[in-house]
Amino acid sequence: MSQLNIPDTNNPRVVIVGGGFGGINLAKHLKHLPVQVVLLDRNNYHLFQPLLYQVSTAGLEPDSIAFPLRGIFRKQKNLEFRMAEVTGVRPQDNILETGIGELHYDYLVFATGSNTNFFGNKTIEANAIGMKSLIEAVQIRNYVVKQFEESLLLTDPELIKPKLNFVMVGGGPTGVELAGAFAELRKYILPKDYPSIPQNLMNVYLIEAGPRLLASFSDQTSEKTVKALEELGVRVMLSTGVKEYDGEVVTLSNGEQIKTQSLLWSAGVKGVPVTGIAPDVTLPNGRILVNEFNQVKGFENIYAIGDIAQMTNDSRFPKGYPMVAQVAIQQGVNLAANIKNELQKKPLKAFHYKDLGSMATIGRNRAVAEFAGIKLSGFPAWVVWMIVHLMSLLGFRNKLVVFINWFYRYFTFERGTRIIIKRGAANIVKLRQTIVS
Amino acid sequence: MSQLNIPDTNNPRVVIVGGGFGGINLAKHLKHLPVQVVLLDRNNYHLFQPLLYQVSTAGLEPDSIAFPLRGIFRKQKNLEFRMAEVTGVRPQDNILETGIGELHYDYLVFATGSNTNFFGNKTIEANAIGMKSLIEAVQIRNYVVKQFEESLLLTDPELIKPKLNFVMVGGGPTGVELAGAFAELRKYILPKDYPSIPQNLMNVYLIEAGPRLLASFSDQTSEKTVKALEELGVRVMLSTGVKEYDGEVVTLSNGEQIKTQSLLWSAGVKGVPVTGIAPDVTLPNGRILVNEFNQVKGFENIYAIGDIAQMTNDSRFPKGYPMVAQVAIQQGVNLAANIKNELQKKPLKAFHYKDLGSMATIGRNRAVAEFAGIKLSGFPAWVVWMIVHLMSLLGFRNKLVVFINWFYRYFTFERGTRIIIKRGAANIVKLRQTIVS
Repeated sequence: MSQLNIPDTNNPRVVIVGGGFGGINLAKHLKHLPVQVVLLDRNNYHLFQPLLYQVSTAGLEPDSIAFPLRGIFRKQKNLEFRMAEVTGVRPQDNILETGIGELHYDYLVFATGSNTNFFGNKTIEANAIGMKSLIEAVQIRNYVVKQFEESLLLTDPELIKPKLNFVMVGGGPTGVELAGAFAELRKYILPKDYPSIPQNLMNVYLIEAGPRLLASFSDQTSEKTVKALEELGVRVMLSTGVKEYDGEVVTLSNGEQIKTQSLLWSAGVKGVPVTGIAPDVTLPNGRILVNEFNQVKGFENIYAIGDIAQMTNDSRFPKGYPMVAQVAIQQGVNLAANIKNELQKKPLKAFHYKDLGSMATIGRNRAVAEFAGIKLSGFPAWVVWMIVHLMSLLGFRNKLVVFINWFYRYFTFERGTRIIIKRGAANIVKLRQTIVS
Repeated sequence: MSQLNIPDTNNPRVVIVGGGFGGINLAKHLKHLPVQVVLLDRNNYHLFQPLLYQVSTAGLEPDSIAFPLRGIFRKQKNLEFRMAEVTGVRPQDNILETGIGELHYDYLVFATGSNTNFFGNKTIEANAIGMKSLIEAVQIRNYVVKQFEESLLLTDPELIKPKLNFVMVGGGPTGVELAGAFAELRKYILPKDYPSIPQNLMNVYLIEAGPRLLASFSDQTSEKTVKALEELGVRVMLSTGVKEYDGEVVTLSNGEQIKTQSLLWSAGVKGVPVTGIAPDVTLPNGRILVNEFNQVKGFENIYAIGDIAQMTNDSRFPKGYPMVAQVAIQQGVNLAANIKNELQKKPLKAFHYKDLGSMATIGRNRAVAEFAGIKLSGFPAWVVWMIVHLMSLLGFRNKLVVFINWFYRYFTFERGTRIIIKRGAANIVKLRQTIVS
């Protein structure tokens, strides 16, 4: 395999695979160290995943939650970015293999994140819709608008219902936020854009296998969330599993069946498998076993951080830390400090997770938030949710565009981006869509 | 074929095919008439084509120049919109055939616009990139960013040049605007995002077969445009045709060859052929021959407006009116008045084109504009260009998002939307991408 064209410096090279929350925070904190940082990602942008659900429900433009990695790191002189897929590792030679060539590393960090977990259910995997990437979100948006357009062509309510029943599976923040957003489409957009479709033909379901929604929150907050969703018209079903889904009918654990052409699955995530790492350190959930310094078991200079890493040094989290942005960010920062310690031959610092709280939005003026012992719900939680998310978005332009979209939607009950961008058009095959592989 | 599900009213039905400038302006002006308007389009949005070039050069988000047709016409109670492709007409029965069913019409209006015209050159058609649709613009953006990313992997300048040579063919407003935008990418973005690529490896060419750019403008403006483009670093070649293009090398009429993987063709447009209309009224350029009332030759209740219509009642335009937004808008308005005249048994009013002037932007602070006998260039023309385009964009949200993008770019020399949205992702095949056909 050919050598990847990266300028040689005399400094040790830290190769980071993945430009998510973990990867970019690690990279940023390596800025002033005498290392060369090589950041690889299959995409050329950092995706702000917490707002992905708004893209899929036509609330935000895809571009406003994606930030070009070159833009983020333009001023970081010790960093090189390349768009690449990792194909393997040869730890004995300190070589990373990628689709665009081989690369020597001194330190290697996997920050590859997670993907939808269907827990081995093949019928669901074959027919349900996951939502982890930007293109998936855009295509969900296209698909949803198409379902409405096609409903207009039908007269038999029994044919319309499966098109307009939207079933979310998984009562975590993503499922709750999706269900709330779909309920708002039903409440505010359907009557205005499709007045001839009776509202009762559209139904939004939220199905959770456990006894309550938002299991990581307090009981009180879980109950408030159910209530708020039900007020919005969502049918919440707790302690209910999904047995089967053939693309037209979903069969629940209690035997009940719902006709739907849209099953959105956010019931779980799993680590993205990494080739070249000894299989005995990769767990069945796809995560890589790491010690308290994020070192991959058996290696001193290979690390994993964020969703892909399973670290069990905290008795509060015997199965590893939750797969959320906060853990990834904090592990990235801690690892940067430890790489500095390594270079200075100082002892490494064990990772400690500081839970900054969690929040989920349910809809217009409705959210729940818990942090520092405080429980918020309703409008105050919604304001906090909005501020925290706006502040976390990278880049002034993105903040402003997101803010305008929210503001606009708030005062007009409108969604601006209900367009279907179709593939097709003859000349496009020529655009050599096969990206650097 | 099945009947299309459209509510029956007692009013005559006007079916409009196409939601471009002509179609939406006609539909709007039918608002208070006792007719039922049925608007059909293959997409569910109106595309503001004049700014398409900014999407393809990463200056604007695709969503900000597309406006959902349902949103535009929400308050127009006498209008029904359906997303559909027209497949034929049976004029003897007053029936329009579409992919989603048949439809009776009393008046039928073709406002189907135009497509890229390669003038029969097969090698160019097979390898050049057209730019008439939103998805084409998004894919050009993806492609251009990909060319930069791939250039980084190469060391031989002779392999890099073809990736970074961008050749525009056609010196009309689109070609000029594209060339200016590419030159700005070269000047402001390349050195910042790809500092290791020498700037002289990227070259932007603008090739025009005629003796001057912007042929519809004055000589003086044409000369200023050449000068402004050359100052930006564009290589302008006048009186030069394109003979051949195999995807790697373009051969010019003077025998010269340029290595490029990106030939952007905006040298001409042609009408989008309509099936079911007698072939003798369709001209070789794809346009339909109409009389001064926009009636298709041989029919009293079938009309064509805008780019698709060739009307030769004005000695200034012996080959028909230019295929620009202004003509489409004015013909739409005039046809609405004539449908009213028809209903009231009044005589029809012949179309008269009022040239409101033209403008083209060349880059930051540089544009040219001619209207009402006034010639503007440089910064004043750029301000006028910006105001006119902002005012013409539909919808408050879109105006604001476009304004922010321009404003941001102006003060930061940045382009915010340089992301590559890739296809792929396993679960997406399931989204039943085949849209209502």
